[in-house]
This record gives sequence, C-alpha cells and structure tokens, in this order.
Amino acid sequence: MPQDKYPLLEAVEFPSNLKRLDKHLLPEVCRELRDFIIDEVSENPGHFGASLGVVELTVALHYVYSTPYDKLVWDVGHQAYAHKILTGRRKLFANNRRYHGISGFPKIAESEYDAFGTGHSSTSISAALGLVVAAKMQGEQRHVVAIIGDGSMTGGLAFEGLNNAGIEKSNLLVILNDNNMAIDPSVGALNEYLTKITTSQVYNRVKNEVWNRTERLKSIRLFLQKTIIAIKSSILRQSNLFESLNFRYFGPIDGHDVAKLVGTLEMLKNIPGPKLLHVITVKGKGYKPAEENQTLWHSPGAFDRDTGERACTRASGQPPLYQHVFGETIVELAEKNDKIVGITPAMPTGSSLNIMMEKMPDRAFDVGIAEQHAVTFSAGLSAAGKIPFCNIYSSFMQRGYDSVIHDVALQNLHVVFCLDRSGLVGEDGATHHGAYDVAYLRCIPNMVVAAPMDEVELRNMMYTAQLPQQRTFSIRYPRGSGVTEHWRKPFEEIPVGKARLVRSGAHIAVLSLGHVGNFVAQAADRLAEEAGISVMHYDMRFAKPVDEEALREVATLFDHVITVEDAAIVGGIGSAAAEFFTENGYSVKVTRLGIPDRFVEHGTIAQLQAECGFDAEGIYRTVKEALGEKLFTHLRGWRPRSPLEEQYQLEDK
Amino acid sequence: MPQDKYPLLEAVEFPSNLKRLDKHLLPEVCRELRDFIIDEVSENPGHFGASLGVVELTVALHYVYSTPYDKLVWDVGHQAYAHKILTGRRKLFANNRRYHGISGFPKIAESEYDAFGTGHSSTSISAALGLVVAAKMQGEQRHVVAIIGDGSMTGGLAFEGLNNAGIEKSNLLVILNDNNMAIDPSVGALNEYLTKITTSQVYNRVKNEVWNRTERLKSIRLFLQKTIIAIKSSILRQSNLFESLNFRYFGPIDGHDVAKLVGTLEMLKNIPGPKLLHVITVKGKGYKPAEENQTLWHSPGAFDRDTGERACTRASGQPPLYQHVFGETIVELAEKNDKIVGITPAMPTGSSLNIMMEKMPDRAFDVGIAEQHAVTFSAGLSAAGKIPFCNIYSSFMQRGYDSVIHDVALQNLHVVFCLDRSGLVGEDGATHHGAYDVAYLRCIPNMVVAAPMDEVELRNMMYTAQLPQQRTFSIRYPRGSGVTEHWRKPFEEIPVGKARLVRSGAHIAVLSLGHVGNFVAQAADRLAEEAGISVMHYDMRFAKPVDEEALREVATLFDHVITVEDAAIVGGIGSAAAEFFTENGYSVKVTRLGIPDRFVEHGTIAQLQAECGFDAEGIYRTVKEALGEKLFTHLRGWRPRSPLEEQYQLEDK
Repeated sequence: MPQDKYPLLEAVEFPSNLKRLDKHLLPEVCRELRDFIIDEVSENPGHFGASLGVVELTVALHYVYSTPYDKLVWDVGHQAYAHKILTGRRKLFANNRRYHGISGFPKIAESEYDAFGTGHSSTSISAALGLVVAAKMQGEQRHVVAIIGDGSMTGGLAFEGLNNAGIEKSNLLVILNDNNMAIDPSVGALNEYLTKITTSQVYNRVKNEVWNRTERLKSIRLFLQKTIIAIKSSILRQSNLFESLNFRYFGPIDGHDVAKLVGTLEMLKNIPGPKLLHVITVKGKGYKPAEENQTLWHSPGAFDRDTGERACTRASGQPPLYQHVFGETIVELAEKNDKIVGITPAMPTGSSLNIMMEKMPDRAFDVGIAEQHAVTFSAGLSAAGKIPFCNIYSSFMQRGYDSVIHDVALQNLHVVFCLDRSGLVGEDGATHHGAYDVAYLRCIPNMVVAAPMDEVELRNMMYTAQLPQQRTFSIRYPRGSGVTEHWRKPFEEIPVGKARLVRSGAHIAVLSLGHVGNFVAQAADRLAEEAGISVMHYDMRFAKPVDEEALREVATLFDHVITVEDAAIVGGIGSAAAEFFTENGYSVKVTRLGIPDRFVEHGTIAQLQAECGFDAEGIYRTVKEALGEKLFTHLRGWRPRSPLEEQYQLEDK
Repeated sequence: MPQDKYPLLEAVEFPSNLKRLDKHLLPEVCRELRDFIIDEVSENPGHFGASLGVVELTVALHYVYSTPYDKLVWDVGHQAYAHKILTGRRKLFANNRRYHGISGFPKIAESEYDAFGTGHSSTSISAALGLVVAAKMQGEQRHVVAIIGDGSMTGGLAFEGLNNAGIEKSNLLVILNDNNMAIDPSVGALNEYLTKITTSQVYNRVKNEVWNRTERLKSIRLFLQKTIIAIKSSILRQSNLFESLNFRYFGPIDGHDVAKLVGTLEMLKNIPGPKLLHVITVKGKGYKPAEENQTLWHSPGAFDRDTGERACTRASGQPPLYQHVFGETIVELAEKNDKIVGITPAMPTGSSLNIMMEKMPDRAFDVGIAEQHAVTFSAGLSAAGKIPFCNIYSSFMQRGYDSVIHDVALQNLHVVFCLDRSGLVGEDGATHHGAYDVAYLRCIPNMVVAAPMDEVELRNMMYTAQLPQQRTFSIRYPRGSGVTEHWRKPFEEIPVGKARLVRSGAHIAVLSLGHVGNFVAQAADRLAEEAGISVMHYDMRFAKPVDEEALREVATLFDHVITVEDAAIVGGIGSAAAEFFTENGYSVKVTRLGIPDRFVEHGTIAQLQAECGFDAEGIYRTVKEALGEKLFTHLRGWRPRSPLEEQYQLEDK
C-alpha cells in the first residue's frame, strides 16, 4: 500500500508527535488509524473488533497524557493495536503476532509505552494500582490509567482491585470501556446494571448538564470542585455501584467522540483520587461487518477488506477442530444422561459450548469471565447430583486452580474439566500457552488427567468421564484440528489409567501424551522407512493415573525411553515416568520432549513445536541421536515390522 | 461438666428437635449453645469468635429452614461450630479438630447437614448457586442459603458468584454476616460501604418501617409483594450495591436478636429470586475478652473460661515461630532497602506482617481477602521499581496462581513470594495443608523455589531474594516454630540453586528440602549411634533451580537416594531429582518421602508427619529398610565419622 495513504500516521511516529497536532486533526488521525488497522489485520490476521472500538479512546489518551511517563495499563490487550501503532510500532505491525515479530498484546520488554504486559483479563486495575502506589512513594506525579472492558470487569480480580483501590487515596483512573461484549456478548448482573445506567434518563440528564456547564466555564477545576461534585454527590453518589466502592463515577460518554474524550480526560487529570470513566464504544466500530457480527469479527482471520469476505480456512472433508468435537459430543452425551450440564466462563464460541447452549439452553451456562466461579459453581452442581462439564482454556484454568483443589478434588466431586487450548497455542503466545496443566493437575489427589491422541479418543474420554463410577476428571486437548473426518464413532469406555500400544518395536520406546502422538507416529514411520528403526510407541492417554504396567514393560525392554508431550516438561508425563522408574529401581534413561522450562513466545503452532523440538522432525532427530549413528549404520536395510504396527492405522492416513 | 448444664441442647440432638421448640425458648437455646462453645473451645482449642458471633443466626436458620433438605452453605467455615453442635455432633465435639475426630470445618463426608465443604473463603455463593440451579432443574423446591462474612465478600470469587447469581432467577438467599472483621479487621472500599449503609439514617428508617408494618399485618406475603417492595424499589434499589447486581437487599438487622432473625427468615422464604440479608453481628459475642480483642480470640488456643486467661504456649527462650522471623526480618531488610514493600491479603497477624505495618505503615499493605489482587498488585509495584514481599499462606496461594504465572513470572518481575504455612499445617486439615506449592511453582519458568531448614536460612533467603540480581523468588516455610533462639545472625547471601552439605556419609544419601532437614539430622544421628550407618545429608535449599552438582555427586556415590520434603511427593524435590537422574542416565533408586498422593486430614502436625512417614522416625525406618537388615548386621559396631559431620551443628542442640 502507498505510504501517502496515511500522512498523519507518518507524522506521528510517537505520542510526542501526536501531542503537537492541533486538536481538530484528531478525527482524521482516528480515520487513518482505523483504516490502517483494517488494512493490516485483513492481511495479517489478529484481534480486530476490540482495537477498532478504542481508536478514539487511544488517540485521546496519548493526546492528553504524557506517555511513557504517564502509564496506560490495557486490560487483556486485545484492544491495544492502536496503542502499538501510535507508539513507534507502526512499521513493525506487518509482523504482528508472527514468529519473532511483535506480540499481539502489550509487553513490557517490547516497548517502554507498554506499562504492563497482559493477555488474560481483569488484571489492569490491580497492576495500575501497583504503579500508582509506587509512584506516590517515589514522589512521582504521574497519571496511571487502567482501560478495562465491561466483560473483564466481571472477573473477580477486577473487583478485588476496585475494592483495594477505593481505599488507597491514589490518583488512579479506571476507564470502563463498555461495548457490551467480551468475545461473546457480556453476561451477568453487572452487565445488566451497566446497560441500565447507560440508558437511564437521570444519568444522561446529569451528564449533559455537566458537559454543557463545563464547556461554558473557564475555570474548570473550580467549577468541578464546587458544582459538579455537589450535583454528583447528591444525585449519583448513593446510586452508583462504583461510587459505593469510593470511586468517583463519570459518564457514560460516547467513546467515539474524540473531542469529548479529550475534554473529559483533561478534566479528569485535575481530579485527585480514584475515579472511573464509563465510556460507551462499539466493538468493530467503523467496519460494518465487524459491527454487525462482533463475536465472529473478534478475531476473524484474513479477509477481503473491500467485500468483508473472510478467507475460509476450513474446507469440508477436513478433520474437525477439537473444540467442535467437544461441542458436538457433549450434546450427544447430554441427550442420554440428563445429569450432564455444561459450563463456560465467557467462551461459548471459543469452546463450542454454544452448540449445547442453543440446543439445551437450560443445561448450558455462560457464567461470564469468572473461572473461579465456573469451577466452584460446577462443584455446587455436582454436590447436588449433576455432572458438570466445565470447559476452560488450559491457561485460564490457572485462575480456577484453588477451586479445582479445594472445591472439587478435595470433595471428590464428579466434575469433568475440559481444558481446551492445552499446549502451545500459536500466535497468542506466552500468556496463552496451556503449558502447565499437566504439572499443576497431576499433583492433585483424586484427579484424573487425560489427553486424547485424536478426536475419537476425545469423544471416548468424555464418554468415560461421565460414567457413574468416575469422579474428578480432566481432559486436555489442543487448539486446532484433529486428524480424521470420520470421528463420529460409537462411544467406547476407555479404561482409566491404561495406555494404548500404538505400535510395538524393538529398538526404543516412545511414550506420548495427547495429540503429539500423531507426530510420534509420523516419526516412527520415517524411522522405519529410512533406517529400519522400530519404535515401540505408547499413547499414554493418562498422565494420572499413569499406566505402571506399560512403564514396567518399557523399562524392562529398553534402557532409553523418550517421552513426548505438548506440556511443560517440568512435572509432565516425562516426570511421571521418571518418578516411576527411579522409585522402582529401573535403570532407564529418559529423554523428555515437551515445552522447555522457559516462556515460549508466539508464532504458528508448527513453528513453536519445531522450536521446542517435539514435532515429528524433532522426535525423529531425538530417536536418531538416542540410538546413535552406529546403530543407524548397523541397521540400515533392516526393516522389522510388528503385527501390532499393522493393526494401528490413524484414521486420516 | 454435668450433663444437666445444657438441658435444651440435650433435647436438641438434631434440627428436627429444634423446630419443635416453642419460639420463646430460642434465646435460651442460644445461651446454652454459647456456653457450650465457650466450655468446649476453652479446653479443646479451635476457632472461637466467629462461631460465638453466629449463635443466634445458626439457631434461627435451623429453626426456619428444613435442613438437611434445605441447604446451608457456610463460607470459610470458621463459624460453623454452632451448626455442628445442632446437627448431631455435640457429643463428638470434644474431638473437634483432633486426629480422627470431627473436622473444624463443614465437610460433606461428615454430615448430610454439611451441604458443601470449605476452609477457604468466598466460595459459598458460587457453591450455593450450583445447589440452587441443580434443585431448579430437578424440580426441587428447596431453599439454599449462603452465609458469608464481610471479609470473605471482598474475595473476587464472591463477586463472581453474585454477578452470576443476579441473572439466574433462582431462589438463593445470601446472608451477609457483617462483623467488620476477617481474622484481622476488614479492609477495603466494600467494608467502608457496609459501615456507611449500616449507620445511614435512610436505611434504618426504611428498615424500621418495614419491620413495624410487617409485624402489624397478617398477610405477610401480600404486604411484602405490594408495599415493601414498592418502598424498597423506589428508595433503595437504585442506591444499593447489591441491588445493582439484581439482589434484593434486606437489612441491616441485629444478628443477635433471634426472634427478629426468625421473623425475617420466615418472610424471606416467601420472596423468590436472589436476595441478600445484611446481618450485623459481633465477633466473639457473649464472651467479653473475645469481643474486646477479636483478632486474638479468633483462634485463642486453650484458655480459662472464668478468667479469660489464655494458656500461654510460648515461653521465652524458645525458638521463634517462622512467621515471626519473617515479620522481624522484613522490617530489618526494609530499613536498609527502601524498595522493599510488604503485602498481605488479610493476614497481617497470621503472617506477622503486622510488625511492618506498625513500624512502616506506608510500606506495608493489607489488601483484604484477595490473593489474586495481592499478587497482581505486587507485580504492578515491581514494574514500577519496588521489591514487594508478598506473603500468602501456601494453600491460599493456589488462588493467586494465574497471577503468579501471568503477571509476575512471565514478566520476570522482582517479587518475593513468602509462602507461610507450607506443608502440613495440623488441625486445620485438608483444606489448609500447603502441599502443592513445590509442584505448582516448580513448573513455572523464571521461578526460584526456596525452602529454609531453619530460621537463619529463612533470614538469609529473604536477604538473598531482595538483592538486585534476583527476580521472581519464592520462599516456603512451615507453620510453627523453628529450631533455635539464636536466629538474629548477620545476613549472608545464599548462592541460588546451591545445596548445603549437612553431613557427609558413606552408606546412603538423603536429600531434604526445608524444615524437615532437622528430622533427617535427628534420624542420621540415631542411625549413626544405633547402627553405625553414615548418612550423607544435603539440605537442598532450592527445589528450583535444583543443585545438579549435588545430584551428580550423590548419583555417583550411591545407588539409592532418599528425598524428604513436607510437600506433595508428586512433582516435588523428589521428582526434580528423579528427572535429573533419568535424564542423565544415572541408575539411582529414589525413595520419595513427603505428603502422599491423597488428601491428608487433620491432627497435630507431628501426628500427620508420622502418618505420612517423613518425621525423624519415618526417615530412620526408611533408611534402615533401604539398606536392608543385612547391611545393618554387617555394620553393627562400625562407626565412621566424617569431618563434615562435626562441622554441622544445629543451633538448638
């Protein structure tokens, strides 16, 4: 695209440039910024609707505040593209979310303008309070602003932050970016409350009065301290949730009126103490298809910016997404077992629980961004005889961890945790990788930790998990597609704690957990073909209880075992194997492939798996190294095949 | 004590008996109940003030509702003694919190009257919502009541529950037991708000109007639906935080007026939908010393019921509590390093951060029951250049887990987590054991996981953790006392990731993490004396990074290594050793002593450690078994001593 398409953005490399512009140019800056985001994200997929919704707010914030001295803390970070573009990263933006490119989220290490990194929701108020309290101690007069969506505001952490900020007499501004959406539409009593006050006549009358007077008067500060606050105190203070928590409440105001935003923020700079500005925005603002279907356009993938046509990534006849298998299967199971209910914390579309929510609206619950509550609510349902399938992304389950231990496992309740997005998730990067679930779940007594190698196994694990003899059960599966389009097989119970022999072999054993078993199968094929190496491969199926019989067998047959998992190697299935071998005095070397003990950044899943060395190539290489060149030479031309090997055929081959 | 001291309690074995009593006898039931609690807890220590505060409420609840069909969900459970005594457990109460006795908390497995188990705060609304939603699906008309303190209400999980309950049109009653206290005084904006509405004239006027009219009218239901709700709607609905969240708000009322409580609850039974009753109580009510010093009398230990004199358990000249060492040391460090700040989520007294809060009130923060916020607030402080010492009990840190990963470790921020009450905590039992921290922290990249063997090591670890070259650091230490009264030694840096050789030995290696190293030392003494066995003992000091040099050494010298930790053996230091040995092809048997893979109940710490087999006796026995009777016979009379052994003297010997 021609550079002169964005003359103002060209001139605004950093906020210091923006601040020198005349105020009347700001709408044009917003127009260019919005265009730029549409141009870029249509070609290089990313989060879309949220950033379009805060274009004016972002421009106003950088225009009014002196970043990076003043600090902006973005909640979740889906909406931070405009911020990134205005803070020196416009030219890097073509590599947004790409391997070795800039992150799709704010990140301290990336820019001094990113005051606090994020990716999960509801952290901004607590983090901003930390920044503002530190500034106070350091004698700094800086302003700190947390920008948080109405969806994120339902997370308990946000409330904890408000509750604490309300007593710290610090100069914190919380901007409530109310677009009535998380990724899916916002739910909950708070959402209803915000809608109510947004449409309330009292509020709007006072609001207009405030603005009309403000614009007439010169001495804004004096006026505010005397008149507005008096009006607000008498009418609003007692009647507003945020005022109840000692925040001064301002708004609601139109978040797409950049002039009004600038005026408001300038006014608020002069008001001490904790305050909340309620801004109404439209997710996807300025791009019609995104305004009309906000969930779909939260992160639409590549699209044609002129027609709004999305590049369809899923042709028919392809293996389904794992999430889709979950979504269809829970409905099938629930049709047969009326104890089953479904729970999602604000991820109906992402988890595919929306299928059940449509077909069985009374038995499927979106509880809002509230992972702890999702788990403890499930525990309550289970204590009353229900069998909840509680679907939470692996990295978000970290937030429900105490509830998993204290409310479910300790009481040995029958709750089935379905951990979508387990393992490396790709472009969302370090905040979103579901790396730690095997480690953090495996240490919990009573907990079953399962991971399917393919769609059929996922279905059968779900089937098994809801049988009456089961109690606390977890099933982790990855982002993305399975391996077969023929996945609707009749249900079969899977023996809990039993591995499945995928192929027998003579030279080395590979134990895999979950979807990565397919990489082992590919590597084993290649090893057999290229070097006559025969690999014994177990799909372990369960990280807990681990199949001790299988472990005993490989320990007896081999002196070197390779474990493969799409999970942190510290505490994962490889550790389970190491614990067993050493406890029982087997002399076995264990090479653990998985997510290494460092935070892995973003890129495609394939790139990251290759980087971590547990893709098919990495497994192939590791086996070769384990057996040594000598064996390879020795074995060349020799091709053993086991009968078990023939039995096993992946559906998609 | 004579049985006829409690004639009414004698008659009230179960709530069904209570319900048959005439209403005018209820104050006398309350008097007996309170006396009984004072009698029992003065002799057999337990939680005291909270239960005294809800005597009338508990009697009223069981009088009005039909338990166990109707469900009472107690938050935290400190206050459930009256409930236990009224539900068939009066005669078991002498064994409250004792080994194999009844639990100090509600527990599903213990009684059908315990609708939901607990021990941690803020879970009751979510759990109760699960019960009530399940009842609705099952066509049951049961009432479900969550009883939650104002302290617990600050936990984000409680807010998440309210937010969800406000849109589920279910018959849920939340009773806000407002005593202005957690264990320490409640803090936060919500607390200020509750105080404000409790003392507000508008509220009290409406409240009185409601009660006066209610008592005059026969048709309560009709009246309520027409008049009260109209009044409340117009005056209160817009002006109450809970009404904002779609809860009907009632109160505040005197929680020590059992007749009024009964009347109110009977009225509320007939009002559908989510509602909140605000009850004002006094923690420790009816026992003067407890009313006057509520924090001290939350859990006072044994005392003389007539004089109020507490049996002083700590004579001078004894080793200090680990928490006290923390509390004194952070002040010493903070005096030298002005970057240091202290954070506690509602545990100033329990953590001893109150020492810093007194001496440096601007640098120590009680953020309320809000573990997630405590961690993310610490992250914000650190991002602004502070070095927060964030002190959270190990089992409560489970609730801050995502914040630890996402906000601190991922950003490699310099936050020092001090995990008090790590390992088995004794009488509080399964909900409170700090069993999983080593496993759930060890899998996090960038995280240092340290555990001191004694007070001096705790001090030096704290000193080391705040040095500028450190980043994310955690130190776990147990409940209870250390081993020496001479703990105020000059600070020394401890090399991170280096173990300390406690004694050299020839026959077997024992690797310990933390305080349990003292048990190893005792066992090793005895083994040397009784059987001439010489044990090589490493105090590993760090579960992460683990000292690979030490592991290499023991793997080279021995074919059997015993690991000892007061933590879950799945994923603990023993797993770290097993990972290292198998990865590097060492053939070493590893026997892991620690908390086994099941939930351990309550008892004294010593009883539980013995049960788990990692006290000195258990270690002694394990070493003997490991070496075998044969070696014992062979070695009898042979007593090697290494020079290193002589060097090492525990301070308290």
